[in-house]
Amino acid sequence: MAKPLKMGLIGFGNIGCGVIQALQDNRDLLDARCPRPLELRRVCDVDLRRPRPVEVDSALLTNDAQEVIGDPDIDVVIELVGGIEPARTLVEAALRAGKHVVTANKAMLARHGAELLALAAEKKVRLLFEAAVGGGMPVIRVLTECLAANRITRIEGILNGTCNYILTRMSAAGLSFEDALADAQKNGYAEPDPTADVESIDAANKIAILAALAFGLDIRYEDVSREGISKLTHDDLKAAAINGYVIKQRAVAEMDEDGGVAVSVRPTLLWKDHPLARVDGVLNGMIIEAWPVGAIHLVGPGAGPRPTASAVLSDVMALSALDERNAPPPPFLTIPVREKPSAHIEASCDGYWLRILSSSEFGAVADVARILTKHRVPTEWIEEEPQPAAGSDGALKTIRVFTGEASEEAVGRAVADFNAAAWCPPESPVLVLPLIQETSAPNWGSESGEMPSSLSPI
Amino acid sequence: MAKPLKMGLIGFGNIGCGVIQALQDNRDLLDARCPRPLELRRVCDVDLRRPRPVEVDSALLTNDAQEVIGDPDIDVVIELVGGIEPARTLVEAALRAGKHVVTANKAMLARHGAELLALAAEKKVRLLFEAAVGGGMPVIRVLTECLAANRITRIEGILNGTCNYILTRMSAAGLSFEDALADAQKNGYAEPDPTADVESIDAANKIAILAALAFGLDIRYEDVSREGISKLTHDDLKAAAINGYVIKQRAVAEMDEDGGVAVSVRPTLLWKDHPLARVDGVLNGMIIEAWPVGAIHLVGPGAGPRPTASAVLSDVMALSALDERNAPPPPFLTIPVREKPSAHIEASCDGYWLRILSSSEFGAVADVARILTKHRVPTEWIEEEPQPAAGSDGALKTIRVFTGEASEEAVGRAVADFNAAAWCPPESPVLVLPLIQETSAPNWGSESGEMPSSLSPI
Repeated sequence: MAKPLKMGLIGFGNIGCGVIQALQDNRDLLDARCPRPLELRRVCDVDLRRPRPVEVDSALLTNDAQEVIGDPDIDVVIELVGGIEPARTLVEAALRAGKHVVTANKAMLARHGAELLALAAEKKVRLLFEAAVGGGMPVIRVLTECLAANRITRIEGILNGTCNYILTRMSAAGLSFEDALADAQKNGYAEPDPTADVESIDAANKIAILAALAFGLDIRYEDVSREGISKLTHDDLKAAAINGYVIKQRAVAEMDEDGGVAVSVRPTLLWKDHPLARVDGVLNGMIIEAWPVGAIHLVGPGAGPRPTASAVLSDVMALSALDERNAPPPPFLTIPVREKPSAHIEASCDGYWLRILSSSEFGAVADVARILTKHRVPTEWIEEEPQPAAGSDGALKTIRVFTGEASEEAVGRAVADFNAAAWCPPESPVLVLPLIQETSAPNWGSESGEMPSSLSPI
Repeated sequence: MAKPLKMGLIGFGNIGCGVIQALQDNRDLLDARCPRPLELRRVCDVDLRRPRPVEVDSALLTNDAQEVIGDPDIDVVIELVGGIEPARTLVEAALRAGKHVVTANKAMLARHGAELLALAAEKKVRLLFEAAVGGGMPVIRVLTECLAANRITRIEGILNGTCNYILTRMSAAGLSFEDALADAQKNGYAEPDPTADVESIDAANKIAILAALAFGLDIRYEDVSREGISKLTHDDLKAAAINGYVIKQRAVAEMDEDGGVAVSVRPTLLWKDHPLARVDGVLNGMIIEAWPVGAIHLVGPGAGPRPTASAVLSDVMALSALDERNAPPPPFLTIPVREKPSAHIEASCDGYWLRILSSSEFGAVADVARILTKHRVPTEWIEEEPQPAAGSDGALKTIRVFTGEASEEAVGRAVADFNAAAWCPPESPVLVLPLIQETSAPNWGSESGEMPSSLSPI
């Protein structure tokens, strides 16, 4: 009989309950599949009195994390506290104590992942984090194991189920942002303080982790260009839909031929047949473009106790398959400390979509066209909506522009001119969203024999 | 410096060339990521004179498989010969010689996988086969590692890119089956002899492998209920589309509460918003439903040298991470010998779609309705097309029926009566396709706390 893999869980909240529930419900199957039996030895939380949906032997419970980290019997610490501190300190202490760590903590990893992974390597233990990105959608293992032989060129995804739910409700039910947010909160899909979700902080954490792994660079939260979704109106989504586009909170990480890297999260117009345009509600979705595979598209539940438990336990099972007599093999892909991209570049797109509010009865459209021409931004389409802008008491009109391919810099100069124009209400600056055309749908693996020159080994 | 992992490749065809190309193109990255450097020691094929798109040191080439299997220096045999024999004999010999095996051979695994996996376990080596199902879409590893902590309840997928291309072309370009097949052959998506693809043999091999792994049962090719796509006409796809359905070659494996298993591949009507309905062209797609994750949807290139090379090399990399001093851990999921399902059941569906040809000017519709009523098959919709059936020289009319939920047995009895009717042309028996409604789209992970009772641990 193999020695049990002894686990200490820190953070007995919703996710922790989901993990314990899955351990109990799938006990038979886990016993049959794991090379070492999984044994839950400790469950730690600051608040042990709160009622919970799972039963745990009270002898396992503690409110002192040291009783987990300091217990020489425990092989694996499962960190489900969330947030940056004290989680980081706990994880560091666990690794220093020679314990494997399994965590779902994206905020911590997007800031301290490189150092923690280096510490794990030094201590000859593993730090695993499938649950940190994509919930039950196994993006970390797909990227770092299934596609490990590939040169990754682009990752794009919908990585925040809260925002995706809000945008889906705004689009499908005609709700305002505020009403869709309230609806999400009512349904348990958004926190009472929704800032981390709607300001794209959560998705930025996730794309930073994916970009760092994919490109083998020290890319962190602060390297991500980030824009929230709270400025979007139902009219914006409707106007986009009329033209065949869906607005999604799109996270993207790309590398260009010179090793420059773009990492951003922002609301983006996606052509309606784009695979991510069809990922609705609380689902997450990802596209990974890589050589030689072509492209892989993955959709799944991005959050919730049960999907997250699936991810946490896949990490625990991987640990149960390690040879306990020897150091574990290093991961195929990791995040190096202080290896920065050669340059931060703009994520590629096929044009921009501008929403410009104007207080002028006449002339603003001509002014908009003149300014775009001046900055050499090609214009595919300009329209002034006949009805007044929503919420403006009839005082403001909406002008919408689809540009052709243009540099973000040129568009930025035009937008600065718009915002300075007499007809632009200072409280409503121009909204600029990138747009992705049908022609930029993923390359699913061309049958041409040539490797794109941008992918040539250096 | 770690000892190299020495590989011998048998089968230097398109896929073999793709693997060697990827090894060459991604050399830098593989050297950096693999714990042991990958070294190609031997390349074996019966025909070495044929020109190939990659260059290989001629000292590596041999036309004698024994020089690979009998070479004590070789750690891993990569079997890319395809077909059942001599592949099975070669793989068995390699495992007996204590070598790991990586294979893309679905036909072999769907017939002899259980014995070969048992032999690998006995010899303390690994038999890996990511490339056998789904090409570059990493379904094997997603199922057996990423979702290893889950109880799998259903797998459904589009597993044959050739059929998917043919059906997509029939639907999008209005081609007949024959013209779409010729188009696929011209583009290199179908073999000169297309039987294995269009008669659903290839997809049956693949779903047998997935079902066996998912349910831990000895399910083989001959256990799969199988129906080809060659009887479908453009009119069938058009009539389905008018009613909001897409016809796909759908492979499905399900387990019911009593451990009964359904494994089938057949053309099926999918509601147009079903995730698989949107997987077009040569792409493959999969949905895995499981507890606790909910459901995962995966799309990717299901064939071709480059996607397949990605899969083969992910297996090789996994082998390079094994501790060479010790036996490898057993796989989490495997195929046991002679553990058969408790019963073979019908795959669930929401009704059937019948295409009935009639040589009668009047009365056949009434007869159809009478027969359906007699066998208690609920009828949602019956229609006789005004124009004569295509290719019938005006002599035949087409009647189409959507049934409500019904047992396949009841439908089968009705169909027997139709086929025996005087107005039914003996050369054109009734076509019966299951249909999947919108309401049967995958359960992406309900937020209710209850585990479905069908999933309770036994």
